[in-house]
Amino acid sequence: MRLAELSKRSGVATHTIKYYLREGLLPPGRPVTTTQAEYGEEHLWRLQFIRALIQIGKVPVANAREVLAAVEDDSLDQHGRLGAATFALPHGPEPDESDPATAVARREVDALIAVLGWKHGGEEDNPPPAYTMLVTAVATLIHLGYPGSVRHLAPYARLAAQQAALDLDLVETYSTPLEQAAAAVTLTVLYEPVLLSLRRLADIEGSRTRFGAG
Amino acid sequence: MRLAELSKRSGVATHTIKYYLREGLLPPGRPVTTTQAEYGEEHLWRLQFIRALIQIGKVPVANAREVLAAVEDDSLDQHGRLGAATFALPHGPEPDESDPATAVARREVDALIAVLGWKHGGEEDNPPPAYTMLVTAVATLIHLGYPGSVRHLAPYARLAAQQAALDLDLVETYSTPLEQAAAAVTLTVLYEPVLLSLRRLADIEGSRTRFGAG
Repeated sequence: MRLAELSKRSGVATHTIKYYLREGLLPPGRPVTTTQAEYGEEHLWRLQFIRALIQIGKVPVANAREVLAAVEDDSLDQHGRLGAATFALPHGPEPDESDPATAVARREVDALIAVLGWKHGGEEDNPPPAYTMLVTAVATLIHLGYPGSVRHLAPYARLAAQQAALDLDLVETYSTPLEQAAAAVTLTVLYEPVLLSLRRLADIEGSRTRFGAG
Repeated sequence: MRLAELSKRSGVATHTIKYYLREGLLPPGRPVTTTQAEYGEEHLWRLQFIRALIQIGKVPVANAREVLAAVEDDSLDQHGRLGAATFALPHGPEPDESDPATAVARREVDALIAVLGWKHGGEEDNPPPAYTMLVTAVATLIHLGYPGSVRHLAPYARLAAQQAALDLDLVETYSTPLEQAAAAVTLTVLYEPVLLSLRRLADIEGSRTRFGAG
């Protein structure tokens, strides 16, 4: 296909595609005239992944190149590829190590991960960004005197595991490793406001049945 | 208690308390000298609620006065009070009505609410902010060609109902209507990053067991 069709099918503007070509994020097409090139399905898949990473995931272009290399690395298993893609996503502020609540939060999060039998935690040299996000969020709760202990968090974590099973079922509906990685990035990011608003609606419904006059 | 103790117990700086007094968000204390006043437990509760609303919930001071009036309105049931408090929270962009995906999203969301048997939806004159948030988020999914139909959303919504049951159990550990409203606001806001990072961690764990080499 020509550039115009690649743009139409990917939903990425032609000037943005040209920028990705110049940056080496997208390999050149097969030249057909001195000014035109032919692009294949593999360009489309790659472009959809780049779009997911940069436009939806807000990953800087400089990092996107590294992520692409990992996702296309045949020596990695699919878990490693999905991790390379999703770990690149922005993940908010680092925990404030000068706040004693951070040490308490880290202990609670480590205990939580142990209780659940999960593998990725603080004992690793390089824990996943989601671990750091969780410590920061729990430290804020504890700092302000709100419940953030294992006992409070574990039931939510068990529901998160059920959300994850749904997430991965969706990812598995895509066929190639690259499409699955694009879906993992996109669904991680785009489902977040969906899940938060579903919870807020469910809170209202729960409040109505529990505290309402009828 | 004097101003200094009210500040210490509430975690709100004295100059901020003076600002809330000037703005009429907090009623004056009982004067003991020409420059000092005595504050009671009801000041502390009110201040904790104001802190939750303004400092944690990012509700503008102008709106906070209205919310306080509703939360202290004895003619409302506790469902109405919690709604007054949580509906005031910021709720992101309005849906883009010029995008055909918005109409599709609204149909899917209305069908979802009907399937679940929930009461608060788009048929109301003034649907809750969470409904609008959900339509916006689902429209983005649909616009980008990702799954956002009732069939995809319903299992997540059922998990959200279980999250809401946990949320309301936490709210019920607080005793007065004002403390419960403060807890509802705070837990709505502060648990959001906790829940999102738990999901991201659960996604990694799920990917490991499903796609990992072992």
